Amino acid sequence: MSKPSIGFVGLGAMGFGMATHLVKEGYAVHGFDVFPASVERFKAAGGIPASSLQDSAKEKDFYVCMVASAPQVQSVLFGDDGIAAALPKNATLLLCSTVPASYAQSVAAELISIGRSDIAFIDAPVSGGALRAAAGTLSIMAGASDEALQKGRFLLQEMSDANKLYLVPGGIGAGSNMKMVHQVLAGIHILGASEAQGFAARLGLDAVKTAEAIKSSPAWTWMHENRLQRMLEEDWHPGASALTIILKDVGIITTSARQSQFPTPLCSTAEQVYLSALLQGYGAVDDSSMVRQYFAEPITKVSSTKSDEETAEALQLVLDLMEVTNLVAAAEAISFARYLNVDLKQFYTLVSDAAGASRQFMKKGLEIMEGLGQGANGDSETVDAASSRLEKAVQKARDLHCPLNLGNAALNVLFMAKRSGLGAEGSTSVVKVFEP
Amino acid sequence: MSKPSIGFVGLGAMGFGMATHLVKEGYAVHGFDVFPASVERFKAAGGIPASSLQDSAKEKDFYVCMVASAPQVQSVLFGDDGIAAALPKNATLLLCSTVPASYAQSVAAELISIGRSDIAFIDAPVSGGALRAAAGTLSIMAGASDEALQKGRFLLQEMSDANKLYLVPGGIGAGSNMKMVHQVLAGIHILGASEAQGFAARLGLDAVKTAEAIKSSPAWTWMHENRLQRMLEEDWHPGASALTIILKDVGIITTSARQSQFPTPLCSTAEQVYLSALLQGYGAVDDSSMVRQYFAEPITKVSSTKSDEETAEALQLVLDLMEVTNLVAAAEAISFARYLNVDLKQFYTLVSDAAGASRQFMKKGLEIMEGLGQGANGDSETVDAASSRLEKAVQKARDLHCPLNLGNAALNVLFMAKRSGLGAEGSTSVVKVFEP
Repeated sequence: MSKPSIGFVGLGAMGFGMATHLVKEGYAVHGFDVFPASVERFKAAGGIPASSLQDSAKEKDFYVCMVASAPQVQSVLFGDDGIAAALPKNATLLLCSTVPASYAQSVAAELISIGRSDIAFIDAPVSGGALRAAAGTLSIMAGASDEALQKGRFLLQEMSDANKLYLVPGGIGAGSNMKMVHQVLAGIHILGASEAQGFAARLGLDAVKTAEAIKSSPAWTWMHENRLQRMLEEDWHPGASALTIILKDVGIITTSARQSQFPTPLCSTAEQVYLSALLQGYGAVDDSSMVRQYFAEPITKVSSTKSDEETAEALQLVLDLMEVTNLVAAAEAISFARYLNVDLKQFYTLVSDAAGASRQFMKKGLEIMEGLGQGANGDSETVDAASSRLEKAVQKARDLHCPLNLGNAALNVLFMAKRSGLGAEGSTSVVKVFEP
Repeated sequence: MSKPSIGFVGLGAMGFGMATHLVKEGYAVHGFDVFPASVERFKAAGGIPASSLQDSAKEKDFYVCMVASAPQVQSVLFGDDGIAAALPKNATLLLCSTVPASYAQSVAAELISIGRSDIAFIDAPVSGGALRAAAGTLSIMAGASDEALQKGRFLLQEMSDANKLYLVPGGIGAGSNMKMVHQVLAGIHILGASEAQGFAARLGLDAVKTAEAIKSSPAWTWMHENRLQRMLEEDWHPGASALTIILKDVGIITTSARQSQFPTPLCSTAEQVYLSALLQGYGAVDDSSMVRQYFAEPITKVSSTKSDEETAEALQLVLDLMEVTNLVAAAEAISFARYLNVDLKQFYTLVSDAAGASRQFMKKGLEIMEGLGQGANGDSETVDAASSRLEKAVQKARDLHCPLNLGNAALNVLFMAKRSGLGAEGSTSVVKVFEP
């Protein structure tokens, strides 16, 4: 049996990789993009250029939508010459764009209201970057009815790594919620990597040696490791991950959090720093440029004159900053995930092998999840001890006049935990600050 | 009886005003400063130049110390050729510098340990700016033993307004604590004025009309009114209130809060923005320049094209932002004051007529104080309603890509209050987030 034809819209960095991967796998992919140049490029890579949205959708039993934002999705699906009206009966539609869960749900409702309940609709945001998109090894978080998932699963599997297709329970919106709570961590850790390395530079520490120490410590994050080279080289143009991308994702988080009236102090703090950087003109460049919000020069210019003992002492402050902040970030993300009825075990598995990973999350995430609503737990360090470590780093940064946006936000959360009487409990109890 | 000779150290903007005012009142003031030019200027204004610290203190029964910071105080009092050793027996020493309470207490202890328990020491920080210093109408917050206050009161009264000499109960440190909790509000409102006017500019509102509306609304703050002209003119040099001044005060607050492990999310947020601005080179210029952290051009360049209805709607967002943020700021300051055993009624009286004043504090401060530890209160607006107003402003700012550091921090505090089950209570109940 020959492989089915596939319609595809959105041939940007990610979409181009996904669509051309499907071409390589032997599918006839009919691609459309609002930029004719992108369609030409797709044609050159073996794709079939569609002359219009309608053309890309007509007679295609399977369709992938990978445009950049909810307003764009709304336009291509339901606008004039839109995809929804053009798809054949019983087609399968994969929405891979990152959108708010409430928006994915509104798409399902609108399909019904325009008489297209026959379409098998899947809410399936992706993660992993352009390289993994082109290799067909993305992480995909797919939520839909069982019937829709059954129809679309082969296609989701084509685009994802064998172990990274997550069928998220909860139907339409559940995939988007899963991606969103993952991005809480990604959004915090991207800034956290810059904050740690900027603070290290203020302390007079060697950038590369600090980075090596972070990598092999409990303070490690996937984002730190991933962004490090670009941060050191200040190779920000054209930007492998433009600031505007994480800013869009963080905006979905804080907007959804506001709709749920749920506190996200760390993610919201990161957002404000991103918005300030946007105002300073950093929008189009790589988000590893955030290090300049903490240190005025390239961090590799710092040449350490410290003794081994002084270096060890200063380095410990950086590690404590990251480690304790990452713990509070894990608590914020997990509590928000729980509030949204996200499957926590699946969330844990997904994060541990994705861009939102941190050693703190991996080590203490399950304990945070188990500790929700329970009494004292078995964590060996107390809230008091963790806040005391972070406090020392924050005070040193203040003495150096170094901003420490996330560190201060995390410390205030820990102080609130202490005010609530959690000081002597295990440090993972900090999650209770976010709980009723 | 002739007026006594007075020793004085620290002839900067404030100190020069205070010292020359005492000269005008007929005192023989022996002034010293580390900058010879300042001493010359003091001489030209009728003061008696002291050739050394020791010279300024020898045989002076009354001494005023007005240097800039605790390390400077330490040096002039206890360093070589220091004041403490040079003062005559039973002298009265007024420490008017803004320092941490714990430092003021350490001065008292050190006087005893060097055998100078005979000195009547008064912890007496001041507020009001250089003009009021020169007019002898400062606010002074004086804490000391009754005996010391009795000896020094006439001199405190000479430098302060008839109604603005606050004899703060609690002994040494109590004056500094009172000033510090006052500065919690000053530190937040300085940024708040810029945040509100920057947001208004992003909304396309006329700067002057917005300012007029704020002034006559429940969103009014003393700082907004005071900083407004310089913000509009961008007349930042040499800076009537350099950013570094409020940054120093805010640093005392957050350092003390950390020592007490007390959460100060809004003040700490303001501090991070100040530190970022410092990194961008704003340290020496007026703090009204913080408006540039929110809007890239002079706000007076905005020429509104809105209809009356659109203007009213946009303006309401700005007013809601300020009003609700100021309410949360009042709760943060009052709860911290209570934690430090500051006399709350006196704090209320002092703030209402000083630079930390806001209409929210004046209107709801007493209710916040009364509501501490109590159940539902009589406030007409609920936490739910207040957070809903702020949420709308924050969302609009996000849509416009405008940072809203304080607004977001305040909203997260309100969301935490809601998570704690306070949503249906009066909005002043938000203070309970800071309480055990």
